[in-house]
Amino acid sequence: MTDRVVLAYSGGLDTSVAIGWIAEETGAEVVAVAVDVGQGGEDLETVRKRALACGAVEAVVADARDEFAEQYCLPALQANALYMDQYPLVSAISRPLIVKHLVDAAKKFNASTVAHGCTGKGNDQVRFEVGIGALAPDLKVIAPVRDFAWTREKAIAYAEERNLPIDVTKKSPYSIDQNVWGRAVETGFLEDIWNAPIEDVYSYTQDPSAQRDPDEVTITFDKGVPVAINGETVTVLQAIQELNRRAGAQGVGRLDMVEDRLVGIKSREIYEAPGAVALITAHKALEDVTLERDLARFKRTVGQRWGELVYDGLWFSPLKNALDSFIADSQQHVSGEVRMVLHGGRAVVNGRRSEESLYDFNLATYDEGDTFDQSLAKGFVQLWGLPSKIAAKRDQRN
Amino acid sequence: MTDRVVLAYSGGLDTSVAIGWIAEETGAEVVAVAVDVGQGGEDLETVRKRALACGAVEAVVADARDEFAEQYCLPALQANALYMDQYPLVSAISRPLIVKHLVDAAKKFNASTVAHGCTGKGNDQVRFEVGIGALAPDLKVIAPVRDFAWTREKAIAYAEERNLPIDVTKKSPYSIDQNVWGRAVETGFLEDIWNAPIEDVYSYTQDPSAQRDPDEVTITFDKGVPVAINGETVTVLQAIQELNRRAGAQGVGRLDMVEDRLVGIKSREIYEAPGAVALITAHKALEDVTLERDLARFKRTVGQRWGELVYDGLWFSPLKNALDSFIADSQQHVSGEVRMVLHGGRAVVNGRRSEESLYDFNLATYDEGDTFDQSLAKGFVQLWGLPSKIAAKRDQRN
Amino acid sequence: MTDRVVLAYSGGLDTSVAIGWIAEETGAEVVAVAVDVGQGGEDLETVRKRALACGAVEAVVADARDEFAEQYCLPALQANALYMDQYPLVSAISRPLIVKHLVDAAKKFNASTVAHGCTGKGNDQVRFEVGIGALAPDLKVIAPVRDFAWTREKAIAYAEERNLPIDVTKKSPYSIDQNVWGRAVETGFLEDIWNAPIEDVYSYTQDPSAQRDPDEVTITFDKGVPVAINGETVTVLQAIQELNRRAGAQGVGRLDMVEDRLVGIKSREIYEAPGAVALITAHKALEDVTLERDLARFKRTVGQRWGELVYDGLWFSPLKNALDSFIADSQQHVSGEVRMVLHGGRAVVNGRRSEESLYDFNLATYDEGDTFDQSLAKGFVQLWGLPSKIAAKRDQRN
Amino acid sequence: MTDRVVLAYSGGLDTSVAIGWIAEETGAEVVAVAVDVGQGGEDLETVRKRALACGAVEAVVADARDEFAEQYCLPALQANALYMDQYPLVSAISRPLIVKHLVDAAKKFNASTVAHGCTGKGNDQVRFEVGIGALAPDLKVIAPVRDFAWTREKAIAYAEERNLPIDVTKKSPYSIDQNVWGRAVETGFLEDIWNAPIEDVYSYTQDPSAQRDPDEVTITFDKGVPVAINGETVTVLQAIQELNRRAGAQGVGRLDMVEDRLVGIKSREIYEAPGAVALITAHKALEDVTLERDLARFKRTVGQRWGELVYDGLWFSPLKNALDSFIADSQQHVSGEVRMVLHGGRAVVNGRRSEESLYDFNLATYDEGDTFDQSLAKGFVQLWGLPSKIAAKRDQRN
Repeated sequence: MTDRVVLAYSGGLDTSVAIGWIAEETGAEVVAVAVDVGQGGEDLETVRKRALACGAVEAVVADARDEFAEQYCLPALQANALYMDQYPLVSAISRPLIVKHLVDAAKKFNASTVAHGCTGKGNDQVRFEVGIGALAPDLKVIAPVRDFAWTREKAIAYAEERNLPIDVTKKSPYSIDQNVWGRAVETGFLEDIWNAPIEDVYSYTQDPSAQRDPDEVTITFDKGVPVAINGETVTVLQAIQELNRRAGAQGVGRLDMVEDRLVGIKSREIYEAPGAVALITAHKALEDVTLERDLARFKRTVGQRWGELVYDGLWFSPLKNALDSFIADSQQHVSGEVRMVLHGGRAVVNGRRSEESLYDFNLATYDEGDTFDQSLAKGFVQLWGLPSKIAAKRDQRN
Repeated sequence: MTDRVVLAYSGGLDTSVAIGWIAEETGAEVVAVAVDVGQGGEDLETVRKRALACGAVEAVVADARDEFAEQYCLPALQANALYMDQYPLVSAISRPLIVKHLVDAAKKFNASTVAHGCTGKGNDQVRFEVGIGALAPDLKVIAPVRDFAWTREKAIAYAEERNLPIDVTKKSPYSIDQNVWGRAVETGFLEDIWNAPIEDVYSYTQDPSAQRDPDEVTITFDKGVPVAINGETVTVLQAIQELNRRAGAQGVGRLDMVEDRLVGIKSREIYEAPGAVALITAHKALEDVTLERDLARFKRTVGQRWGELVYDGLWFSPLKNALDSFIADSQQHVSGEVRMVLHGGRAVVNGRRSEESLYDFNLATYDEGDTFDQSLAKGFVQLWGLPSKIAAKRDQRN
Repeated sequence: MTDRVVLAYSGGLDTSVAIGWIAEETGAEVVAVAVDVGQGGEDLETVRKRALACGAVEAVVADARDEFAEQYCLPALQANALYMDQYPLVSAISRPLIVKHLVDAAKKFNASTVAHGCTGKGNDQVRFEVGIGALAPDLKVIAPVRDFAWTREKAIAYAEERNLPIDVTKKSPYSIDQNVWGRAVETGFLEDIWNAPIEDVYSYTQDPSAQRDPDEVTITFDKGVPVAINGETVTVLQAIQELNRRAGAQGVGRLDMVEDRLVGIKSREIYEAPGAVALITAHKALEDVTLERDLARFKRTVGQRWGELVYDGLWFSPLKNALDSFIADSQQHVSGEVRMVLHGGRAVVNGRRSEESLYDFNLATYDEGDTFDQSLAKGFVQLWGLPSKIAAKRDQRN
Repeated sequence: MTDRVVLAYSGGLDTSVAIGWIAEETGAEVVAVAVDVGQGGEDLETVRKRALACGAVEAVVADARDEFAEQYCLPALQANALYMDQYPLVSAISRPLIVKHLVDAAKKFNASTVAHGCTGKGNDQVRFEVGIGALAPDLKVIAPVRDFAWTREKAIAYAEERNLPIDVTKKSPYSIDQNVWGRAVETGFLEDIWNAPIEDVYSYTQDPSAQRDPDEVTITFDKGVPVAINGETVTVLQAIQELNRRAGAQGVGRLDMVEDRLVGIKSREIYEAPGAVALITAHKALEDVTLERDLARFKRTVGQRWGELVYDGLWFSPLKNALDSFIADSQQHVSGEVRMVLHGGRAVVNGRRSEESLYDFNLATYDEGDTFDQSLAKGFVQLWGLPSKIAAKRDQRN
């Protein structure tokens, strides 16, 4: 039987050209797999037909938006995962989902190999290859752009030569990756990290400095899952989409950062993640009310490590699984409502209520009804400070 | 010789009344100590005279604003210390400075005891008493409000009876603590955590949603110390003051949170810290460019622990000292400039440049001049993912 | 109805006397609860009768040895919990079990209060009271020894006066707590931390320096649970007992340490835990073979925090529960056999085999059959070291 | 000028042959560098002459034993660095020292390149190359064994052909690396991890099960540095050598473990480190007495990360430097004496005394002289457990 290669297919120039090129170079049949993670653009059927027109023997397209929201965005939300305190892992969480679909297709179509279009200096090659290795350790991987120095110029020449049904004239000045959790932009002039981004870079968000009225939204969580917005039941996908729309309209979720790539270099990245930022902000505020202090403190360490692992391509790793168990346990009381104002680029929580609240008005108030027994404090303070005090005595003695 | 008590004196009703009350209860002479940490309000000489008029045998006033900025705010900035990812430790870092002045006064005036006006359900009692224990383990501490259930009503009656020179009619509906690093507000109606704050609560910041022009500022750091603003040399105190003014005018640095107090309860707090938030944002952006990845990752853990320790009253503790050594080492290359736009409640970095930058355009660029050897990536990715792959093979086998 | 107090009853002088004393002081009826956690000594029926003879209205005795082994020792084993790298939490894990039985009895007998015999400078008071607060927040607690300065002399006088059926002449020079997980000893002459322990201190272990033959044992684990010894199926309790016997006979598991108590002081402690030490040693060796590297590294942090929490009395805390979820997930592949030599105070693993092993002979060997592709290493090493190299270039430049 | 290559030279077959082979392959002159880190064996002058006889244009030999002890072993001791809780980083800490000497020689002799003899599946290649990159980012590296598949058979043939002055008949069945901090052994039959090591594997240690008298030793530390043994002043090197001798004679410090290599595989390793294990044991015991609790807890995390970094080849990394600052700060009070019995494979501390002790007899004792105020405990316990109690009430409510 002819060998088969499953190709991660976007519908764009590079991967359309790769279909024929891989077939020629390897003698294998190419199966194109395109996954909708909410990136927008062309409809899946158009993408499917183009793959076939470019020479794929099979073309699989999947609307994985709900799967992405529930299995990938939701864990990131529950981890409050912000790499380097900022980046909500937009591309990092879509890669493992795509990997899963590629591996499924490889099994279904008896392919020996998976191909992706990543370069050799980014994080995504790691996420693809480590993910594939973890789901199907026997699959081979090829990366034409990286391993065969494939370039845009070569791709255009190849497409024109073979008259492939691709518009080769469109060339964004930006390198973009987007999905329902957010949008990432890299571009030439931003590689000078002193240059400020311009408004043209953005797509998911409006200019936060434009004058408009604030938008108040109430988000309901049930055990860490957003289940309603302003009282209307939503799926996780709908929650993200609705907040992308509303928070995006207020300019929320723009990020401009220099980040540490796994391959050892720093890079400048612009992100837009209005829904992700609004949801994480609300979720953290509800955790502040419903998580016990020690749990909340340690969960920060867990969330940071979770974010680093996922950024570093280790979604399908044993440690990630164990951290997920910790996080799942932590979410059982994260239920309640958060009221938030979206305005001028800010998502600001100004109210929270929860049947699971650990905030106790009677313990906290300085007014009537105070039930806190202040006489306990003296002993607490004395013993809390005793180790420092003993150390101080030692220091004075010597 | 008559025993002496050093009293942490604010000039307000409670501590003014405490002078006489402590003298009567203990038979000791009272030495009043007031420290200016940038809280504004009356001038120090007025405060000093009132202390004497209320019966203090000595009244010491100190302008500690530069000391506070350099010895307390700067370490917090270098740690990027945000308790629960938000609170820049406004009150938490002023208490150890006040403690230091109280202990110095106790030594100078041969006092056996220090008195403070904190309640028994807050964090400040811990910061005072643990701090005193760590600097002067043999000093005794009294806390009239906590240990003798002193109330505002009793204080007013006491003041009127003795005709003390204090205006007892002014009564803010808010409980406030402020200094140059920020301002903390607690109040009755905000103890219902579903209630939103109103504009009246704020003093350091203007309404972020008001229409105004953005303000662009460039901050220069030298080894983690802010040394210039828009090219003009500043002291640390001036840097904070200038950014309080400019960021405050843009509504930057408002916080509304439910926080975990050390004494075991959750409380609702409103903070304003325009300068602190702007400086920490800029400092983190410069660290993103100048700190190596592993150092940056571990420094997050160190910064979190530092913030917890300081919040928990352990400023003068052995672990705090050791973490300071780590942080000091990490700052040696944190030099350069950060350009930031202050507008509409946001402090957004959009440019950074540094002689100490680890960002390497030639390694990062996808354009000409790229010096990154992509052929290295394949081996890296394979070995990076090998542990997960071996685990996956094991899982498939069993 | 007459109020009732549940008393943690040991059968010894102090708690026997406490029955009558509490009844007299409080006017309540006393329910005595004794729990067998493998401490040995008198049989439960004798203990029960004495409680009644001393005035208890009810006396509950429970053989909780299996429960203790499975619900308390096993989690400690799976966490490899060694406080300060040494102490296997002998007393720390028995207190929450006893608390659970006390709370159950309080519910059954409608008691409003629980009484324990701990002093005010140890850890156990914390473990009792925090545990009770977490299981039954409305129960009151009394601690006669601590809160009423009850002393041994007073207890003897009280017992003699009332002619209670207790032998008041026996007085061990040591303060001892023991259960199936180990034995703790404190004593006067060891409070000088320069003094060495003497052989008389020990009970669970023979002198390790005595000449005897080594004892080889093979322990089988299934998902982190010890299930067989030398091929014979055992319960968790039997595994601990068997290894107490065999490792104890070889002098394994003696500890002499200065430890940090939660109440802020350091204390000198002697422990014997032959079974615990042997099992933890074997379990760690099997984890070395079956846990993926990143998981193993992070699990050390989790295990340390778990041990600190349990030592600090927080067994029934939300963070402890979430850490348990992490640990449970980590144990799913910890299955296999460990061969260990017990001899001369040492428990030394010298062989391990597992269907779940991640050790791959063909990847590890330097002989024939080597399947490791060394050509991958160059790229890996280059990118692994790239951040340090870029930092070095920066340092040389400046 | 002819290009030059600096070769890490051991005097053995592989690197002797490499001299000529590198010269032939590259056309460069070879400078051989041999460093004495206490590995024993031939004297340096013999090694130097052999290098020249094999064709080196320059041969540098250095007695770096004191430098190794003070700059490499001591930091490992102060970190209590035990990779995977066991391995004292024997080879891992010698590589950076050798790297430093190679880089110094490269500068002195104007070499463009450094060569090492490591394979592609071990950790040492990483330590060499990452270290070189961090000290001299412009130096090139060649690794003949890894990059050109150099084998022992080829080496023997080459040596015989050219009549090099090397004995090619000696072939240890073991692959060995040793220095003053310890000895590492890998070997064919131990690659089956069920096989137990045999006595023949060991060299630094006697059989621990042989009958002999115990050896009591008192070690004095000053600020974390071992400065005297049984009252006699020693250098760090002498302290390690003396304890290698005495602890080795008692069979202390044998390790048998399956460890996680950086390159992603698990390997079986046998180590002997009598001096390192005895010193770390003593040092930890003194830290238990002299470090404040919070500092001690966090230092465990720092020590674990330090060990991982050093194991992973990142000695010369920014994070390692910052951790060193933390550790240096922590050592300022680690002064005093530890008494230890070496016997039967065990190094057991049974006494400690220190002017810097935080152990306070009067706070710890249960006898007369007790100064601990037990009345403080009640308030402490209540507030310590308050977060768990509030969470428990929440759980009961819902």
